[in-house]
Amino acid sequence: MQIEAGALLKNILYPSDLRKLKDSDLEEVCKELRQFIIDIVSVNGGHFAASLGVVELTVALHYALNTPYDQIVFDVGHQAYGHKILTGRREQFHTNRILGGISGFPKREESEYDAFGVGHSSTSISAALGMAVASAYKGETDRQHVAIIGDGALTGGMAFEALNHAGIEKSNLLVILNDNCMSIDPNVGALKEYLTSITTSKSYNKFRDELISILAKISKNGPDAYGWAKKIEQSIKGTLLKNANLFESLNFRYFGPVDGHDVTKLAKTIEDLKNINGPKLLHVVTVKGKGYSLAEKDQTKWHAPGLFDKITGEIKKTTHDKPQPLKYQDVFGHTLVELAEANDKIMGITPAMPSGSSMNIMMNAMPNRAFDVGIAEQHAVTFSAGLATQGLVPFCNIYSSFMQRAYDQVIHDVALQKLNVVFCLDRAGLVGADGPTHHGAYDISFMRCVPNLIIGAPMNEEELRNMMYTAQLDNIGPFVIRYPRGNGVMPDWKRPFKALPIGKGRKLIDGEEVAILTFGHVGNEAAKAIIDLNAEGIYPSHYDIRFVKPLDEELLHEVFQKFNKVITVEDGVLPGGFGSAILEFMSNHNYQAQVIRLGIPDEIVEHGEQKELWRLCNYDAEAIVNECKKLSKTQPTQFQVG
Amino acid sequence: MQIEAGALLKNILYPSDLRKLKDSDLEEVCKELRQFIIDIVSVNGGHFAASLGVVELTVALHYALNTPYDQIVFDVGHQAYGHKILTGRREQFHTNRILGGISGFPKREESEYDAFGVGHSSTSISAALGMAVASAYKGETDRQHVAIIGDGALTGGMAFEALNHAGIEKSNLLVILNDNCMSIDPNVGALKEYLTSITTSKSYNKFRDELISILAKISKNGPDAYGWAKKIEQSIKGTLLKNANLFESLNFRYFGPVDGHDVTKLAKTIEDLKNINGPKLLHVVTVKGKGYSLAEKDQTKWHAPGLFDKITGEIKKTTHDKPQPLKYQDVFGHTLVELAEANDKIMGITPAMPSGSSMNIMMNAMPNRAFDVGIAEQHAVTFSAGLATQGLVPFCNIYSSFMQRAYDQVIHDVALQKLNVVFCLDRAGLVGADGPTHHGAYDISFMRCVPNLIIGAPMNEEELRNMMYTAQLDNIGPFVIRYPRGNGVMPDWKRPFKALPIGKGRKLIDGEEVAILTFGHVGNEAAKAIIDLNAEGIYPSHYDIRFVKPLDEELLHEVFQKFNKVITVEDGVLPGGFGSAILEFMSNHNYQAQVIRLGIPDEIVEHGEQKELWRLCNYDAEAIVNECKKLSKTQPTQFQVG
Repeated sequence: MQIEAGALLKNILYPSDLRKLKDSDLEEVCKELRQFIIDIVSVNGGHFAASLGVVELTVALHYALNTPYDQIVFDVGHQAYGHKILTGRREQFHTNRILGGISGFPKREESEYDAFGVGHSSTSISAALGMAVASAYKGETDRQHVAIIGDGALTGGMAFEALNHAGIEKSNLLVILNDNCMSIDPNVGALKEYLTSITTSKSYNKFRDELISILAKISKNGPDAYGWAKKIEQSIKGTLLKNANLFESLNFRYFGPVDGHDVTKLAKTIEDLKNINGPKLLHVVTVKGKGYSLAEKDQTKWHAPGLFDKITGEIKKTTHDKPQPLKYQDVFGHTLVELAEANDKIMGITPAMPSGSSMNIMMNAMPNRAFDVGIAEQHAVTFSAGLATQGLVPFCNIYSSFMQRAYDQVIHDVALQKLNVVFCLDRAGLVGADGPTHHGAYDISFMRCVPNLIIGAPMNEEELRNMMYTAQLDNIGPFVIRYPRGNGVMPDWKRPFKALPIGKGRKLIDGEEVAILTFGHVGNEAAKAIIDLNAEGIYPSHYDIRFVKPLDEELLHEVFQKFNKVITVEDGVLPGGFGSAILEFMSNHNYQAQVIRLGIPDEIVEHGEQKELWRLCNYDAEAIVNECKKLSKTQPTQFQVG
Repeated sequence: MQIEAGALLKNILYPSDLRKLKDSDLEEVCKELRQFIIDIVSVNGGHFAASLGVVELTVALHYALNTPYDQIVFDVGHQAYGHKILTGRREQFHTNRILGGISGFPKREESEYDAFGVGHSSTSISAALGMAVASAYKGETDRQHVAIIGDGALTGGMAFEALNHAGIEKSNLLVILNDNCMSIDPNVGALKEYLTSITTSKSYNKFRDELISILAKISKNGPDAYGWAKKIEQSIKGTLLKNANLFESLNFRYFGPVDGHDVTKLAKTIEDLKNINGPKLLHVVTVKGKGYSLAEKDQTKWHAPGLFDKITGEIKKTTHDKPQPLKYQDVFGHTLVELAEANDKIMGITPAMPSGSSMNIMMNAMPNRAFDVGIAEQHAVTFSAGLATQGLVPFCNIYSSFMQRAYDQVIHDVALQKLNVVFCLDRAGLVGADGPTHHGAYDISFMRCVPNLIIGAPMNEEELRNMMYTAQLDNIGPFVIRYPRGNGVMPDWKRPFKALPIGKGRKLIDGEEVAILTFGHVGNEAAKAIIDLNAEGIYPSHYDIRFVKPLDEELLHEVFQKFNKVITVEDGVLPGGFGSAILEFMSNHNYQAQVIRLGIPDEIVEHGEQKELWRLCNYDAEAIVNECKKLSKTQPTQFQVG
């Protein structure tokens, strides 16, 4: 739906138009921009509170800087809607996150104003430093490079790695700390407390001024006092002040904290900072959801609220005739508490995704046994490994695409030591509107090659519950459970627990001619396909392989002794994936068959609705029907192994 | 070789024996322990300077703590030789790093004193925090958990993630910062400068004491002075002191810096710290190589010097009759400079491995174009991505097993954006004595599943040079080049550059019956095997596939049209690896053949010499001979595709 922009905003196609305005107009621009975001997101959905929080900062940046020559890197990018609207994409903004439309995150191929593609947290300082160092090397001394990073994203270790490096480079880098005390959920950790202490106590700069004036007063009070004052001043300047601020400890010049909603002052400050060389950090205090009072009050709920009535704030729910299945994440959350009630060794760990993973259910029920460790996947995994060394059973829940961030820790700290950590990989497979940065496309391939891992994928809620139950039963080593974003298939999901034999699949349908082997939730697409195929007189077998590691060799021998036409289906990339595991089995045992592997192709899959993407990638029910029909029409392969 | 221990050390089998001694004996124990390490490492090889630097710290820890009930996690573990010798492994210590002998790193299955297996950097705080939180949960209030981390390892982002989390946990964690200003090479970054500033200026605690005494003096000086003193004191206590130290900013209680070579004082300090609850950090200043003056003077050279004469300090070199091939890493280092001289867009990036990767050659030749960014693989990759956005061509050199640490950044920041970063993966494949934590076993599988990557492996030095040359020619997107630890095969390696066609392999030998397909340096094993096979009248073909992505489909069609017996050989894990890529090709094109895939099996491969391990894993020349003979004796598979 197209939305009318306000009088000033209407005339801003690009930042050059914004820069023609007087600074007294900026407040009105912010008002209109904020309204435009509310108008669109309320009817189209998407991320909400983060962009509202940086309206003033975004306007100030494009006003004070010479974008796109000057380059802005937004960390994560949830907050970049205002930026997109001001940089040539206002008219397309209603296509945000829709198949074929603009991306919900900054993206280099979308606009020259998007200096760096983002989605995952904590990359902005590294990227902007690279740009700044390149500019310094090329002699572009007038060029500005800015990283905008939230206090949540700053807890990610690579942000610290980048600060540590930036502190010794002379290049012109400005880090803007967007301090709103939030990740998607409230931010946690010592750093957050530190930032709050700076912000709530007298500001650091003010204190410095005051101290100097007191010392000046003392020094007027006679020769002795003068001596003391000097002595104190020297000590303070020499040791303490230099290191008095965490960022100054890392050689950054620190400025702030400043009010992130005073656009005129922000623009002026950014303008001033252009003339200060070397690494510098501007601490900006903002309110996530600013200007939409409900969002200010419940920032987690309004991070990405879905569609809502912008006047009443009522969030629209789709109504259904019959009870709908729960989301997999909620089945995880409730089941974990159920298991933890019976097994006091179970602990829960999430890196900053309490609500997204439903770990918050355990955090509320058992606050001493469930940990939000910040945006810190690496630490989350090795912290879990530490817990496991003490005989506890940590359930470490990390989205599939974020698990890429902790890959070394899975190998080095868990798998090599065969520690009993249960990894629950939520959002595995194509995730939909969040697009390529968030698709959990690679985990089957990157996990399957690691020794000692057990890797399962439940086809439905009951299977998820049983896998979780099985994983905590004995000390059976690292156990990976992957499941998709979105709803399951069983309204009556809460069934009694049953232990699953590790590495055992199941035959769901005994058919003929073609065997369909599936891994995880995508098995439901196969089940739908089979109904359609049966109607056309084709009767494939259906095997839910359940564990890609270890494989159920007994079942696979059965399959390949009976079938020479096989279709594998997975919600993951084809190279090295589930289908390849089947090919490896065949090769090891010298089976020969025609195998059609369906799954995510070896290319970047853009954003769109999950079902649209399954369609596009040719592994939904319709695709399975088509492939099965094609296959059943071919002549069977004749083979005979000597 | 067995070495005699000194009089005190001889009677220390376990720390309980150490704890029977008087604290006045500790200095002598340290002397004997240091001598024992020198005696053994000089004749057996291994890591050297790091363990010498922490002799006193190691003795003090085991003396003051009740190990193994109290738990010590060594970060990286290069420095744990003293620990191993004091904890039941003195008699086995001469088997260090040898096939079947003890590991060069702490390892849980080796000893209950090894609380956590290590090898890669920056994991210790996360692991020890996990242990401490578990103890707190279990009510073990008397139990101590210690992480010992170097200033180099502290630059790794996950260490910061762990500090951020630990700062809000109440559990009993002691972090000991072993500050010696070194990684393997000199440590870099703002943090190092900060630590140096603490250490070289008046110490922080001393300063605090002094300040308080000055304020006390002022306050005696009459009513006015009293008022000022109070005001200053309040301000300082309220804001500045609380945050005056980086670690205190993160809620750690900071102690130090203390002399890391005063064993009695160290033991006393650690004893005292047991009674202080919550997160605390002890800053210990040590000298890497302490007690062996040559090592103190050139710490990088003496990190792992190989065999040496302990009296003269002469490092022993194996002598050869004819000129030996260079190490691959040196071919990389020299070639990079050669290319960079001709192409001013080339930049070099290493995360703390200047000497290990030979990036130091470029750092010396072109200091403004080559960057050591610290132990910070994640940042290294995204910093490179930032450089690439500006049209530069970064060569980012990371050991294969350390690349696991930056996997998300390869996907999210480079591959998705198709940025022209050249990744040089040194130490790909089995690395030898460093063992399972350092084997570059997984990269083919975890890289091959990522879209947009070009992945090549040179079979020799000339190929490495040509791949590097090709990678910088045009803006061809991300390019991965993997090569092994150790020497190449061509004494005359410096040949003129030639561009390689991307995704094209080459037929090396045109034979019959069996085709051997190899990827990378391991092709030389196949070449040796073929000489032996020829002598027995077997004439296989040999194809050097060169690029596992994209595959040379034309060449593979040729192979599978001609051969139905194929052997694939790779220096990487079999699941999802090079051989699987070949199976995928076959399946896609419905080729059927008997394929034997040789490579690293799906299990943890321990330490030993590289050639011993190739043998054990059955992919050296001998294995290829055997497999080829077996295969050539089988009846060919009859196939016919309808």
